[in-house]
Amino acid sequence: MNVFVDDRVAITNSKKIYAIVDIFSKLVKKNQIGISHELNRILKLKSGSIVEVSASEISDASFLIKKKLNGGTLSEKDLSFIVSEIVHNNLTEAEIAFFTSAQKLNGMKFKETINLTKAMVKTGARLKFKGKYVANKHCIGGVAGNRTTPIVIAICASLGIKLPKTSSRAITSASGTADVIETIANVEISLKKIVKMIEKQGACLAWGGSLGLAPSDDKIIQVERLLNLDVEPQLLASIMSKKIATGAKYILIDIPYGHGAKVKDLASAKRLGRKFHKIAKHFKLKMKVIYTDGTQPIGDGFGPVLEMLDIIEVFKNNGPQDLKEKSIYLATELIKLCGIKNAKTKATESLESGKAYEKFKEIINAQNGKKNFNNKLKELKLAKFKKIIPAQKSGNITTIDNKGINSLCRILGTPETIAAGVYLHKHLEKIKKGEPLITLYSESRTKMKDAIKFLEEFKPIQIK
Amino acid sequence: MNVFVDDRVAITNSKKIYAIVDIFSKLVKKNQIGISHELNRILKLKSGSIVEVSASEISDASFLIKKKLNGGTLSEKDLSFIVSEIVHNNLTEAEIAFFTSAQKLNGMKFKETINLTKAMVKTGARLKFKGKYVANKHCIGGVAGNRTTPIVIAICASLGIKLPKTSSRAITSASGTADVIETIANVEISLKKIVKMIEKQGACLAWGGSLGLAPSDDKIIQVERLLNLDVEPQLLASIMSKKIATGAKYILIDIPYGHGAKVKDLASAKRLGRKFHKIAKHFKLKMKVIYTDGTQPIGDGFGPVLEMLDIIEVFKNNGPQDLKEKSIYLATELIKLCGIKNAKTKATESLESGKAYEKFKEIINAQNGKKNFNNKLKELKLAKFKKIIPAQKSGNITTIDNKGINSLCRILGTPETIAAGVYLHKHLEKIKKGEPLITLYSESRTKMKDAIKFLEEFKPIQIK
Repeated sequence: MNVFVDDRVAITNSKKIYAIVDIFSKLVKKNQIGISHELNRILKLKSGSIVEVSASEISDASFLIKKKLNGGTLSEKDLSFIVSEIVHNNLTEAEIAFFTSAQKLNGMKFKETINLTKAMVKTGARLKFKGKYVANKHCIGGVAGNRTTPIVIAICASLGIKLPKTSSRAITSASGTADVIETIANVEISLKKIVKMIEKQGACLAWGGSLGLAPSDDKIIQVERLLNLDVEPQLLASIMSKKIATGAKYILIDIPYGHGAKVKDLASAKRLGRKFHKIAKHFKLKMKVIYTDGTQPIGDGFGPVLEMLDIIEVFKNNGPQDLKEKSIYLATELIKLCGIKNAKTKATESLESGKAYEKFKEIINAQNGKKNFNNKLKELKLAKFKKIIPAQKSGNITTIDNKGINSLCRILGTPETIAAGVYLHKHLEKIKKGEPLITLYSESRTKMKDAIKFLEEFKPIQIK
Repeated sequence: MNVFVDDRVAITNSKKIYAIVDIFSKLVKKNQIGISHELNRILKLKSGSIVEVSASEISDASFLIKKKLNGGTLSEKDLSFIVSEIVHNNLTEAEIAFFTSAQKLNGMKFKETINLTKAMVKTGARLKFKGKYVANKHCIGGVAGNRTTPIVIAICASLGIKLPKTSSRAITSASGTADVIETIANVEISLKKIVKMIEKQGACLAWGGSLGLAPSDDKIIQVERLLNLDVEPQLLASIMSKKIATGAKYILIDIPYGHGAKVKDLASAKRLGRKFHKIAKHFKLKMKVIYTDGTQPIGDGFGPVLEMLDIIEVFKNNGPQDLKEKSIYLATELIKLCGIKNAKTKATESLESGKAYEKFKEIINAQNGKKNFNNKLKELKLAKFKKIIPAQKSGNITTIDNKGINSLCRILGTPETIAAGVYLHKHLEKIKKGEPLITLYSESRTKMKDAIKFLEEFKPIQIK
């Protein structure tokens, strides 16, 4: 047929769909094709069915993407079709790349962003919960550590707010919230289980990846991360569609800003914040956007296990003060947003009294399907190689670069090696020569050497 | 390792290269990897060699592509690296899509286009020929039929000009020059054979696809054609790098323009032409750009066999006048460009005396490795189903849409079915009701039906 791997063919039976060709000469015989389970959910073919396969066809979505690339505007129907083609695997990654490039370089009108969000919600599952306070939170990322989510969720859930929280795994950072929770709990839970947990525990800390909530998002992100791209309209639509799909009515968005963060200054952060507000208003959601300091990492440990240890310490009224304070701040804002009075007092009390910790244990046990929280905690271990790096001079620590800390963790083996990572003994403060600055953890001597080399070469931490 | 299909890994042995992951669980055992022949040309591994594979690494070329996507300028070194990564299969199609999008939407400076061209030449094979006149021609396409190349090449070669011509197969058209030549000759010849033919016959009509001349081009085009995109800097660099790689010093570029062509008007055509001239000047090449009428198809037959029949008729002093005239015009300009006097007379004489036809036969026989031109010609057959479509009213034919004719041919089965296609009985001229307008050829009744439906629905030919 003159088709090659990655070419597109149209397969026609009762319906016509587009599919990307792969060639496995031994799997199928002449005049036979094999199709993926995903495609067969649409075509519903049985073994032996006759289909018509025609070559070189271009999905109509391609024309729409080209239209956007040429500066055109996409309608609700256009965007709905593109997103549905992405979800049904009818577009190649290259075409998705063209789509995100077009968004990045030609921008999207407000109406387009709204319609993209709608399309992303519509093509996936959607949760609905009864009850007054169904809320969610999201941080746009860029700050190393900053693992407030488990603490905020536990505080708010302990106060009766429902939080169907889904998180991602690390893309470029040391670890994602899902990676951190996974050190002690099963995060790959089903939608059914989430619904049950929201009823019973009031919250969950699930991995969002395989739930089918705004599923186009995962495919688009997979392409964007090739270049570690941030495409603003896509970012807005991705975040908002996921939150809408979880059924949230109250949404808190955290935009860290400053040198070394994703957003460089407060003005840019507020510009982005206004866009979030506008979308929230359109979908009749209550939203609060907060602008937080993104110039240095938050917490002391970086890497899945190290971050979980920080979280546990905060629950036990120890642990990094910055992480504790930010968590209380976020929880307070989310409680306020739901219209509950004395938010700050309630948030602080919940955390300091251990009520939040109890809720957290409840959530973890529910996700594991058994009361094994204490055992899981005992099993947490740090990596076998440990290297304390002392300050090479006395002075003020002026820079702790977020990206540098993340890269350092990656070199040490995170997120795959959950026990690897970095422990930061000091933040932006005074230090004396010889005092411990950071400790590196790794399961591999080579990686440890590479990390020390990286530290020396790129100097992510600077003392002046 | 937490890597999935299409993820990137770094493979380190004596060298470090990036590769895209595919997963064949039965082909390799645990702790084994298989690598492609292409990669092994660089790594030179033997079965059983130990390599280090690490996940999630991003090719440095990604950072450069991102730089361009963010509006930056790429240096010679940057472009050289990106192109080399494309050639070595170290970039995914999605990354190539980002690269071409960035070029399309942010544009390229002249210097960048030059450096891209250089990089594309440098990463492939390059031919060098002795002798005064080494020339080449290129048409940017968009006009259905328009198969002047074999005629122009034969005329010019009969006059002593050396023409190492490589052509492409059809991408979106009814057929490419390589498809047409392939109806009677082997077009997949080696570089070695081309060199021999240029010495002996003075010209060739080869398929450019697997020769390794500016090889990045094929991969970039593969991505662009997903959206049928034309990215100007890439177009310039692609065409010029291919011509430079063939060793040409005299280059004729044909830019058809007008409604229904790729370039909409003369002003745009000239704008593009000036860019070609500027690049040619930089590389010290003699260039002539001609601007031709692109508003209607050229020739009567469309589809590989039908176009070959037109060409043979022109060589025999019959055949479509428009094709004959345009071929003589192009040949004349190319002969003039080489500084040979009385170009028009010489071109016309060569064609009308049969000298060009003899040269054409010589080229075909050389490519086939035996004198079988007449047999090959006799074997040419049109498709078994034939349908003459008469004019539905009397009047002037006002439109014959190039894209419409190409789509019609595609529906009828071209280029895969070489005997399929369209024969046009009239061009933009008067016609009486009931006179034959076009004839459709196909090997499939269904396709014939689809084609008639297309004709009725999209009316690529209009009578007023």
